Amino acid sequence: MNKSFALAARTSDEALRLRASAVIPGGMWGHQRAAAVPHRYPQFFVGGKGCRVSDVDGNSYIDFMCSWGPIVLGHQNEAVNRAAYGQIEQGDCLNGPTRHAVELAELLVETIPHAAWALFQKNGTDATTACVTIARAATGRRKIVVAKGAYHGAVPWCSPSLVGVTQEDRAHIIEFAFNNITSLREAVDRAGSDLAGILVSSFRHDISRTLEMPTPEFAQACRDLCDAADAMLILDDVRAGFRLHLGGSWEVYGVQPDLSAWSKAIANGWPLAAVTGGESVRDAASRVFVTGSFWYAGAPMVAAIETIRQLHALDAPEYLRRMGQRLRDGLAERASRHGFEIIQSGPPQMPLVQFAGDDDFAIGEAFCREALRQGIYLHPRHNMFLSTAHGQADIDEALDAADKAFAALARRT
Amino acid sequence: MNKSFALAARTSDEALRLRASAVIPGGMWGHQRAAAVPHRYPQFFVGGKGCRVSDVDGNSYIDFMCSWGPIVLGHQNEAVNRAAYGQIEQGDCLNGPTRHAVELAELLVETIPHAAWALFQKNGTDATTACVTIARAATGRRKIVVAKGAYHGAVPWCSPSLVGVTQEDRAHIIEFAFNNITSLREAVDRAGSDLAGILVSSFRHDISRTLEMPTPEFAQACRDLCDAADAMLILDDVRAGFRLHLGGSWEVYGVQPDLSAWSKAIANGWPLAAVTGGESVRDAASRVFVTGSFWYAGAPMVAAIETIRQLHALDAPEYLRRMGQRLRDGLAERASRHGFEIIQSGPPQMPLVQFAGDDDFAIGEAFCREALRQGIYLHPRHNMFLSTAHGQADIDEALDAADKAFAALARRT
Repeated sequence: MNKSFALAARTSDEALRLRASAVIPGGMWGHQRAAAVPHRYPQFFVGGKGCRVSDVDGNSYIDFMCSWGPIVLGHQNEAVNRAAYGQIEQGDCLNGPTRHAVELAELLVETIPHAAWALFQKNGTDATTACVTIARAATGRRKIVVAKGAYHGAVPWCSPSLVGVTQEDRAHIIEFAFNNITSLREAVDRAGSDLAGILVSSFRHDISRTLEMPTPEFAQACRDLCDAADAMLILDDVRAGFRLHLGGSWEVYGVQPDLSAWSKAIANGWPLAAVTGGESVRDAASRVFVTGSFWYAGAPMVAAIETIRQLHALDAPEYLRRMGQRLRDGLAERASRHGFEIIQSGPPQMPLVQFAGDDDFAIGEAFCREALRQGIYLHPRHNMFLSTAHGQADIDEALDAADKAFAALARRT
Repeated sequence: MNKSFALAARTSDEALRLRASAVIPGGMWGHQRAAAVPHRYPQFFVGGKGCRVSDVDGNSYIDFMCSWGPIVLGHQNEAVNRAAYGQIEQGDCLNGPTRHAVELAELLVETIPHAAWALFQKNGTDATTACVTIARAATGRRKIVVAKGAYHGAVPWCSPSLVGVTQEDRAHIIEFAFNNITSLREAVDRAGSDLAGILVSSFRHDISRTLEMPTPEFAQACRDLCDAADAMLILDDVRAGFRLHLGGSWEVYGVQPDLSAWSKAIANGWPLAAVTGGESVRDAASRVFVTGSFWYAGAPMVAAIETIRQLHALDAPEYLRRMGQRLRDGLAERASRHGFEIIQSGPPQMPLVQFAGDDDFAIGEAFCREALRQGIYLHPRHNMFLSTAHGQADIDEALDAADKAFAALARRT
C-alpha cells in the first residue's frame, strides 16, 4: 500500500523516507532519526565492505562513521562472520549459554587488567545500567556522579532527552564538569555518604561539542575520590572501547576502574555488550538480576572472540592511531591550503573536525555535504570512527576527496 | 589457565561450569543463572535443529523451552537464516537503517490491528521501557499501573529483584492483582489524575505460579479504565506475542491496546524487539529518544519478515494450540495412569505442568529430571513454549518419554 509513495520520489532514499514516514514515528527514531541525518545525507543503506558503505541509490563512500562505532575491522570481516556463521549453523539462541560465553569471559579477563570477570548484554545502555545497579548493590548506596552532557545511554536515568522522563528517574544522579577536578570534588561532596560511584566516559565525546581527552590528573582524581569514599569507579568504554587501548581506555593513564561498560566495537557489528569488573564487585555482580532473551546467544560471542583476536594481532589501537593521524595531518594541510581554519579534536582513532567560529555547524555541514559528493562519509557533529580496514591508500583517497570538498566550499563562501 | 578446571570435571558441562565460576559472577547471570537451572539439568548447549536441542555432552532433547521463547519455527529454520545471511553478506549494522526497517514496520502495521506504526529495539525490556516512556510523553503524566509479580523486564523500574534498585526507581509504579477488576480500579484511583497508563501482560505468566489467562471482563476493564482516564493501555506481548494471535494476544478479547511491546518470537531467535502503537501515540513516539547501537541492523529485521511470513502461512497460533492441546491431553492421561494429579495451566501454546499439592516444586522438579533422562527438556516452574517444528510424532514421542518419567517417579514416591 505504502509503496505507492515511491512513485512521487526521485530517489530510492526519498521513496523509503516517504514510506517510513507512514509507519515509523518521525520517519526514523533514535540517533539515526530522520531529523538528525545531515541535510542531503542518505538515510538508508544497503551494505558495506571493508572501509566502504553503499546507500540505497548505489552511491559508495569511504566510511568514517563505521556504523557509529561497531565496525572496527571493516564491514564484512570474513573471519568474524565465518566464525559467527559456524555457531549459527549449530544454534545461536538456545536454552542455555554456549561454551563461548565462558571463553569470551576468559579472553576479556586476560585482555583487560582490571577485569576479574565479565557479564554480557546486547546494548551499551544495558551495560551502563548494569554497572550502576552493581555499584549500588556493592556499596549499599545510591548516588551516581556523572559528567554533565555525557551520553551514557537512552533510558530514563541517563537519556539525553527528558521527554517521558520523571524527576525520580534522575533523583540520584549528580553532575560535574568533565576534566574539572574541583567540580568533581563538589559533586562527590554533595553525594556524601551516599556515593555509590563515579560514572565517566573514556573521553568527552558529547555530540556537537569539541572532543576532549581527560587529563591524567582528572583520571587519577576519579580513582582517588572513589578510593577515599569506598565507592565504585565506573568507566563507560562503550564508545571508545577497543579503539584506544585493548585493556581499557584509561590504561594509558594507569587508572583502573572497578567496573567497565563495553559494547560497540566488541564484535565488529554483531550485537553484544559487556560489563567487566574487579574482584571487589564480583559478589555484587552475582546478586543483581540483569538479563535479556538474546543475551546468551553464541554467535555474537564467537564474533567477539574473533574480533578481539584480530585486534590483538593487528595492534589495532596503534594502527588506528597512525591512520587517524595521517587523516588529521592531511586534513589540516588541505584546509589550510584552501584558507580554512579547522579544529580537530579527540583521539586520532575517533576524530571530530570543526571549523573555527562555526558555532551553528553551518560550515561543517556544508563541508561534509561536499565531501559526501566526493565519496567520503563524514559526520559534522559527532565523533567519527576509523577501522583497521582503512589503509593508507584509502586515507589518501579520502584526503583527495576532502581537498575537492574544501575547494568547493571555498568557491561558495 | 582456567582450562585446568576441566581435569576435575566428569562432564563437559561440569568443566564449563567450573571455568565459568572463575570468570562469570555466580557462574552465570540472569534468567539462565547457574543457581536457577533445575538440579542436574545441563547448563551449556551446543545447538538445536527443529524441535530438538543438544547439550555440550552430546545429549539431545525434544525442546519445550524454545530458548525461553524466541524459537517459534524451530531451531535453524532454513528460510529465516538464509534470509538473514543474505543481508549480512551485504551489511548488517550500518550508518543508517536498511529498507527492511520500513518493510518490517509495514508488515507489522498490516498484521496488528491496533498498530499504525512500529519502532525496533533489541530486548523485550527495551520495548516495555520505551512503551512506558511513550505513555508518559503522550499523557504528560507519570503513574504506571502494573500487576503485582508480573515480569516486565530486568532494569530497575521493573526488575523482579530489588538488589541495586532504589525506591525512586519504582516511585510511579502502582500495583494491582491480575484479573481482579476491583484491585485494578483501586490502583487506577490511586494514580488519580497522574495516570499515564496500565501495563499488563497478555496473560499471567509469573514464574513459580499457576498460569492464568485474563478474563474477558478484566481485559475490557483495562481498556475502559484507560479510556475513561485518557491513559494508555500497554500490552506486554513480549513473551506471548505471535504464539496466541498474530494480531496481538488480546485480539481474542476484542481489546486493542494503545501500545504493545514485542520481542522473543518475532525473528525466530535473531535479536529483535518492537513497539507498536496507534495513531494517538504516534506524536509522542516521535518525541521520545530511545536508541541503541544495533537497533537498526538489517539481518534481524529480514529474519523477522520471513518469520512472520511463515507464521501467517502456517496459521501458527492455531497449529501451536493444537499441538499444545495434544501434549496437554496426553500428559493428563499418562499422569492419571500413574496415579498423579497434575495441574496444567496457561494457553496450550505456552503450557505449565504442576503437581497438586507440590508447593515447593519438589515433585515437579523430580518429574522434569526424569523426563530429561528420557530425552525431553521441560521446565518445572516457568511456562514452556511450543514451536511449529513440533509435529504430532514429536509430541507423541515426548508423551512416551513422559510416561516413562511418570513411571520412574511413581517408583520413587
